[in-house]
Amino acid sequence: MTALERLIGQLAQLPGLGRKSASRIAYYFLKADKSVARSLAASITELLEKIRICPLCGNYTEELPCSICADMRRDRTTICVVEQPKDVHSLEQTREYRGLYHVLMGAIAPIEGIGPEQLRIENLLRRVREENIREVIIATNPTVEGDTTALYLTERLADCEVTVTRLALGLPVGGDLEYADRLTLARSLSGRRPARE
Amino acid sequence: MTALERLIGQLAQLPGLGRKSASRIAYYFLKADKSVARSLAASITELLEKIRICPLCGNYTEELPCSICADMRRDRTTICVVEQPKDVHSLEQTREYRGLYHVLMGAIAPIEGIGPEQLRIENLLRRVREENIREVIIATNPTVEGDTTALYLTERLADCEVTVTRLALGLPVGGDLEYADRLTLARSLSGRRPARE
Repeated sequence: MTALERLIGQLAQLPGLGRKSASRIAYYFLKADKSVARSLAASITELLEKIRICPLCGNYTEELPCSICADMRRDRTTICVVEQPKDVHSLEQTREYRGLYHVLMGAIAPIEGIGPEQLRIENLLRRVREENIREVIIATNPTVEGDTTALYLTERLADCEVTVTRLALGLPVGGDLEYADRLTLARSLSGRRPARE
Repeated sequence: MTALERLIGQLAQLPGLGRKSASRIAYYFLKADKSVARSLAASITELLEKIRICPLCGNYTEELPCSICADMRRDRTTICVVEQPKDVHSLEQTREYRGLYHVLMGAIAPIEGIGPEQLRIENLLRRVREENIREVIIATNPTVEGDTTALYLTERLADCEVTVTRLALGLPVGGDLEYADRLTLARSLSGRRPARE
């Protein structure tokens, strides 16, 4: 196997890439200035060397604690609970949330053998008890696993003095009623809000 | 800028990737076994070190001459002319062609300042004259640049004793007449073949 074939094979394993897009990228490395591929390889290596997991929230970070946990201007009374570090990234991009995060590193999935004890749930309960937390926003995915996790967390948090909320479900902005699936439309109906607030 | 942001930015520059798919891949590197990302970075570096251009056909290769030019079982009387090394890859995957190749490294594009002298055309004419070539298949892209290049090559090859052919244009296999563009349909009509051969 040549170096080119090997690279195409490896690229094709990445999420969202197939063999066609993988070979397009590999040939691009050869056609473009060599520094493009060289600095990409260096960045991958650098990422693996520098990245840590924040001991407080569980997000990926280069500094300990992470820049969000260390930021004293953020609202330190609210924790948003997500499944994965990439969910923090998505929520940060909305620029709507100014509180703290807690990454569970997965969701409860009995079929895959993932129970509450495999997730960072005890850390969360400790934070809620020991820090001055007033609201926990559960932002797990709207899937069977995410819903199971949300239910479990809600029960575990019941005896803490915090408000527990979940992200709203409904139509996507710019979406079309016609293309919404039945479940989303039903949730969007049951979660309807007054037209003027 | 963190290592993660830098990598996402670089991945987003690759052909076919946007910011969403780039961040999906970067987070995948962190979630998957570290050896996945490490060996990908190593493969990119290895590719840049090992890859050469075959002095005969112009294709990317690790050995000189390339495995196709060196393969004595191939039909050495036919040369297929392509714009880019990746076109060799595409044609090889059909497993229909058993001749040799010649990579031009581009196509004539006066607007971009690319004339015949920037392409590997003189090498091609020398090969046709000096080797025992009977057919030259012009497999440039069906674009303005590819057609211009094909026309130019046809004229330059007119006084050589070779058959000059071009790839057939027409409907894609599995395609639908309804969705074919007007030009493709017109070419498919003018290039019609007897129903039984």
